[in-house]
Amino acid sequence: MSSNDSIFRLNRRLLLAALIAAPALTAMVGPVSTSAHAAEDHDALPSWNDGPAKKAILDFIRITTDPSSKDFVPPEERIATFDQDGTLWVEHPIYSQLIYCFDRVPALVKARPELAKVEPFKTVLTGDFEKIGKLPLRAIEEIAVATLTGMDVEMFQAEVKAWIAGARDHRWKRPYTDLIYQPMQEVLTLFRANGYKTFIVTGGGQDFVRVYSERVYGIPPEQVVGSAVGTKYGYDKNGKPFLTKEPKLLLNDNNAGKPEGIHLEIGRRPRAAFGNSTGDRQMLEYTQAGDGARLSMLVLHDDGKREYAYGPAQGLPDSKVGTFPQALYDEAKKDGWFVISMKDDWKRIFAFE
Amino acid sequence: MSSNDSIFRLNRRLLLAALIAAPALTAMVGPVSTSAHAAEDHDALPSWNDGPAKKAILDFIRITTDPSSKDFVPPEERIATFDQDGTLWVEHPIYSQLIYCFDRVPALVKARPELAKVEPFKTVLTGDFEKIGKLPLRAIEEIAVATLTGMDVEMFQAEVKAWIAGARDHRWKRPYTDLIYQPMQEVLTLFRANGYKTFIVTGGGQDFVRVYSERVYGIPPEQVVGSAVGTKYGYDKNGKPFLTKEPKLLLNDNNAGKPEGIHLEIGRRPRAAFGNSTGDRQMLEYTQAGDGARLSMLVLHDDGKREYAYGPAQGLPDSKVGTFPQALYDEAKKDGWFVISMKDDWKRIFAFE
Repeated sequence: MSSNDSIFRLNRRLLLAALIAAPALTAMVGPVSTSAHAAEDHDALPSWNDGPAKKAILDFIRITTDPSSKDFVPPEERIATFDQDGTLWVEHPIYSQLIYCFDRVPALVKARPELAKVEPFKTVLTGDFEKIGKLPLRAIEEIAVATLTGMDVEMFQAEVKAWIAGARDHRWKRPYTDLIYQPMQEVLTLFRANGYKTFIVTGGGQDFVRVYSERVYGIPPEQVVGSAVGTKYGYDKNGKPFLTKEPKLLLNDNNAGKPEGIHLEIGRRPRAAFGNSTGDRQMLEYTQAGDGARLSMLVLHDDGKREYAYGPAQGLPDSKVGTFPQALYDEAKKDGWFVISMKDDWKRIFAFE
Repeated sequence: MSSNDSIFRLNRRLLLAALIAAPALTAMVGPVSTSAHAAEDHDALPSWNDGPAKKAILDFIRITTDPSSKDFVPPEERIATFDQDGTLWVEHPIYSQLIYCFDRVPALVKARPELAKVEPFKTVLTGDFEKIGKLPLRAIEEIAVATLTGMDVEMFQAEVKAWIAGARDHRWKRPYTDLIYQPMQEVLTLFRANGYKTFIVTGGGQDFVRVYSERVYGIPPEQVVGSAVGTKYGYDKNGKPFLTKEPKLLLNDNNAGKPEGIHLEIGRRPRAAFGNSTGDRQMLEYTQAGDGARLSMLVLHDDGKREYAYGPAQGLPDSKVGTFPQALYDEAKKDGWFVISMKDDWKRIFAFE
């Protein structure tokens, strides 16, 4: 892990924002299950320990789907949004999409050999994470632009698909898509079984996440909102049309960008939202501010043994707790959001355990 | 009608683009029916006359939903996109959204009395369509910016909802939402009954169309892609968050902007696409260029008696046929798109007939 520690010291949200938002870049609702009672008759959340978080989820599902409840939500208004990194899968010590960018550099240099002697590509080619972790933010942006834009969108999709199938994380030696949180998979399934449309609302690139979202989360591409660059329509030499990913930022889907992205691509305020960091703050505020029953939840990374610990529960100063500072914890308590303790609320973390 | 003729003379697509794109502005797939056979056993398209257009639709549904067909499309990939103006409802002689903008001017002037003596608001206040129709494009843009941006998105939604309930078109003296084409409603229903997700992909403002799309077309807001301005997240004096519509263009969902908007908000290439004008050309090209079975169709407005006639069938020079020039007709024939003749293919136009 030590090789990754230097990267860990970078503000990770900044990194992801940079990844996409580089300044250089300028109802059919599914079948409703037999509903609330189904959640009570059997345990719809078997990977959750009994406690306030699990109860909050089950209560919310019950009151919003029971037609006799004052908080009943018509099926077409059942929208639930989920941050991805740190909420649905591991984001530590470095976002998978950023590793993708680093991993793409050799192919990039092969296509453009002149880059081999140019920073920051030269440093990335060394494969020395100690050095890579010390690259300035501007260098990370440059790598992101070079590896995420400028190509046909279908070529990009094919490259991500191949990478995600082959790449392995350093700690568990497994595909990144194995590092999804089983308790949250159960939440996705429970919401969908009760007529909710589940959306990913990620600070990561939506083109990236859409490649595997359906297979991994059961969430189709059209229900993934994320940071996005523009595309440009054109024709190849045979007159066949294609879209090219442009180095032009359309949506930085972090912080205030999350409710803005939700309005752009969904057009309705969520009834429930799940996040884990300051980047999700505005999405949770926006969700909670709507009329009627709302559910806003934050995953707290306080399990250094089974996963990672970087929340306020560690008693660390804000500068050390990264994306979940005490102020966020305080806002959650004040505004009636629920904090999910990975250590206390989750019976298990991964399906492979 | 004479009062509208002067507006008719404006290039109508330009008008709509201007409406939004003013330069001043910088899977759960639904239940699959008993499928193909259902479409054969009863007439799923009763408002259609037998002919090549009706046959093309029924054939496409059959071959893409029959599991034994070589052209079978997995349910999660069943995406169909529909232009709105001129494809799902009447666009002639002037887009409803533009009338909305004009109709909003008195309220705007009430809030900002200084505008009463300023052009173009002064002219719009006269209510004289002869004069309004002669306003330069730049003036139309100014009215669009003033009436479509600068307010809380929920306030905008409430205003559009009230307007659409009360406004009446000049020819049929009915709500604009009565002027939807019954044959196309049947197509939407048929596609959805066969597991297709139906999307509107409109050059109009997506915030506008989303207000009534679910009620009128059965298409939820999250399945409406359209021209869009950015929003800005903020807080009111009580700390409650809200989104403000900004005078900043994010997506001009016309022409090349249609496949670009589809990529942004859907993330998959449609299997079927319906349009009626040059603004839909790239969407149809993009749809048709995909692998496997594809269906691209253009509604030809050739029924001057029951609706309007402004297609090449009139034998008019291109400058007079507005949005459906001969070149588009030729591309359709060359690329295997189907042209729907309103006169010949549609048994009736409106449900109220």
